[in-house]
Amino acid sequence: MSDPGATWLDLPAGTGYGLDNLPYGVFSDASGRRRTGVAVGDAVLDLAAVTGDPLHGTGSLNAFLARGPRAWADLRERITGWLTDGALRARVQPHLLPRDRVRMHLPVEVADYVDFYSSRHHAENLGRMFRPDSEPLTPNWTHLPIGYHGRAGTVAVSGTPVVRPAGQRKAPADDAPTSGPSQRLDIEAEVGFVVGAGSELGTPVPIGAFADHVFGVCLVNDWSARDLQAWEYVPLGPFLGKSFLTSVSPWVVPLAALQAARVAPPARDVPLQPYLDDTGAEPWGLDLTLEVRLNGEVVSRPPFGGMYWTPAQQLAHLTANGASLRTGDLYASGTVSGPDRDQRGSLIELSWGGKEPLSLAEGTTRTFLADGDEVTITATAPGAGGGRIALGEVTGRVEPAR
Amino acid sequence: MSDPGATWLDLPAGTGYGLDNLPYGVFSDASGRRRTGVAVGDAVLDLAAVTGDPLHGTGSLNAFLARGPRAWADLRERITGWLTDGALRARVQPHLLPRDRVRMHLPVEVADYVDFYSSRHHAENLGRMFRPDSEPLTPNWTHLPIGYHGRAGTVAVSGTPVVRPAGQRKAPADDAPTSGPSQRLDIEAEVGFVVGAGSELGTPVPIGAFADHVFGVCLVNDWSARDLQAWEYVPLGPFLGKSFLTSVSPWVVPLAALQAARVAPPARDVPLQPYLDDTGAEPWGLDLTLEVRLNGEVVSRPPFGGMYWTPAQQLAHLTANGASLRTGDLYASGTVSGPDRDQRGSLIELSWGGKEPLSLAEGTTRTFLADGDEVTITATAPGAGGGRIALGEVTGRVEPAR
Repeated sequence: MSDPGATWLDLPAGTGYGLDNLPYGVFSDASGRRRTGVAVGDAVLDLAAVTGDPLHGTGSLNAFLARGPRAWADLRERITGWLTDGALRARVQPHLLPRDRVRMHLPVEVADYVDFYSSRHHAENLGRMFRPDSEPLTPNWTHLPIGYHGRAGTVAVSGTPVVRPAGQRKAPADDAPTSGPSQRLDIEAEVGFVVGAGSELGTPVPIGAFADHVFGVCLVNDWSARDLQAWEYVPLGPFLGKSFLTSVSPWVVPLAALQAARVAPPARDVPLQPYLDDTGAEPWGLDLTLEVRLNGEVVSRPPFGGMYWTPAQQLAHLTANGASLRTGDLYASGTVSGPDRDQRGSLIELSWGGKEPLSLAEGTTRTFLADGDEVTITATAPGAGGGRIALGEVTGRVEPAR
Repeated sequence: MSDPGATWLDLPAGTGYGLDNLPYGVFSDASGRRRTGVAVGDAVLDLAAVTGDPLHGTGSLNAFLARGPRAWADLRERITGWLTDGALRARVQPHLLPRDRVRMHLPVEVADYVDFYSSRHHAENLGRMFRPDSEPLTPNWTHLPIGYHGRAGTVAVSGTPVVRPAGQRKAPADDAPTSGPSQRLDIEAEVGFVVGAGSELGTPVPIGAFADHVFGVCLVNDWSARDLQAWEYVPLGPFLGKSFLTSVSPWVVPLAALQAARVAPPARDVPLQPYLDDTGAEPWGLDLTLEVRLNGEVVSRPPFGGMYWTPAQQLAHLTANGASLRTGDLYASGTVSGPDRDQRGSLIELSWGGKEPLSLAEGTTRTFLADGDEVTITATAPGAGGGRIALGEVTGRVEPAR
């Protein structure tokens, strides 16, 4: 891993986008052409221009991701070379554009989207609220990473307006359901994993092959309409309570940039089935620190390092039945919540089902989201250079129901 | 609607593929080139060749479907003209290939896959088996068409081998889960709806706009591992119990061919929310008769006409929260089961959870599927010509776990 100080670039002090990060995204400038770029400092390196490779002009990362781990490592090494070899400066510098002058797009054409439920604190909190008469964790929770498929077609890039969804809801005390705009619009602060290299139908991906398939990481806000979800989700799971929008950050941080962030997952309560057992395997817990801002004010700092199930276990589970992977598959961790109140990754937890409103610095309170509210999730991780690298941000503002 | 007798083609007596059907699929011959074809009699009309339009040489129907209802109607009318105008015979006939000499492929690049649960008889049967201590129908069932997202990447064309999936299961009497090949591999006989024209994020599709978006119908076998499903599905719904494979028939029958099959849906138990209320609207029940064959023997004849929720209601529900549609979206009805035992669309119902094995003519019995078993689902519908049109078949043979 190169020393982020060794570049000829004049990087801003404390940038989260040094040479130990180099995340990939899809941008356009005034020309409107969508192409692949790499964030470095306050700039974006135009990969289509600097490489001349049409692969980087397709408007999504998919074609590059499909090439697999060797190609990912090669390009990362070449980019590092361009930015550290002073002799290349004159050739490379014209292809560095100010990041605040470009528009970011959805980085990946999403194939299938899966959402897990891997924070024990979140699952326990939700269990207490949704099923107050049962144990907070269902009996399967400690044995497998519970997940479900979401709607790939409504995964959108950060900044996409969040139109308040309408739908059916029925409170337990109501005689019959009613329809209308959601009254319990919520967020879920999550971390997403982007599959680069696919797999064959009928053949599970073992837990040790995680880095052969997964390219990198982004941030996810899995917007949720809790009133719709509560009424619809028995017995087949969440559907319209989730499918109106899932927002993702524009920069995909390669796993290669997260070596310094890797930590052991928490101790497990029960012996795991062999395909999930990571005892003695390479650890794939990740020490990411998320921040959730509501209208600019930090309301939570969820710690990703404490997640019970790792992304390597999630991938092994997802394919244990022989389901194949495709380039562009995205799976998310589920809401990241820590043990403390100010580490909860959703408003339903932060306001305890709406019963304990959050007081905001501006003097107002919130249970769920109001029209006009803006939520921004950011995250950082330890980088190879000794500082912290940035995972960018995923943001969205609530618009009134149509 | 043309008279199927009026063609210059020599159609086999009782063909389900007269001019009142004209389903679309993707085929290849010895050249390996995938292109769009239309089934007529025992032939396939090579649309790429006869039209010369590269749209029909893309290897999926998506590009054509994206053109929308006017283009669908136009092409249907042109094809009918080619096959009825004797003056065109010499030009068209060279592009009719014997159907038994071509290979069929997945007709549509599937965008999102949703599975509903719209047969009351099926939902009641499953409820009795999975939740014996509760009412068979959950309280939401009569108020909304329950559905969930499935895995689009494992939707495959009829004939794809069904590799027995492995996974976790835990019977209630077991102390802990075990892993291994599914011991309760099942089928679900369903009808699928293919979205042609997409819709805008944030804008629901009203119930009356069904035919503006949905192009046509195929058959679906939603293979299910009941032991995996039973252990995993609380609280977020089916996941690995379903995601290993979903098979679809290769021929997509356009809605235009199903005018004579349209019937009123059953009376509803409760007043419906306005967005689902189809009182006085165009009826979109469909009088399809399915047949399920296990190793060649008919084991069930599920009637689709009695489904509680129609595909128009399913589409209105799917988008009620503003979720957008994309060309290639596929949604399936859920298992089609009628009130009688020999009308049940899954083995878990036919064998009542494995307690009442099916006796097969060959002298053996079945509860769930054995390695080597082959399941074929076919269906017919009343056609405009007074006879019945065919929806083709979806078939698959079980291979041992790997």
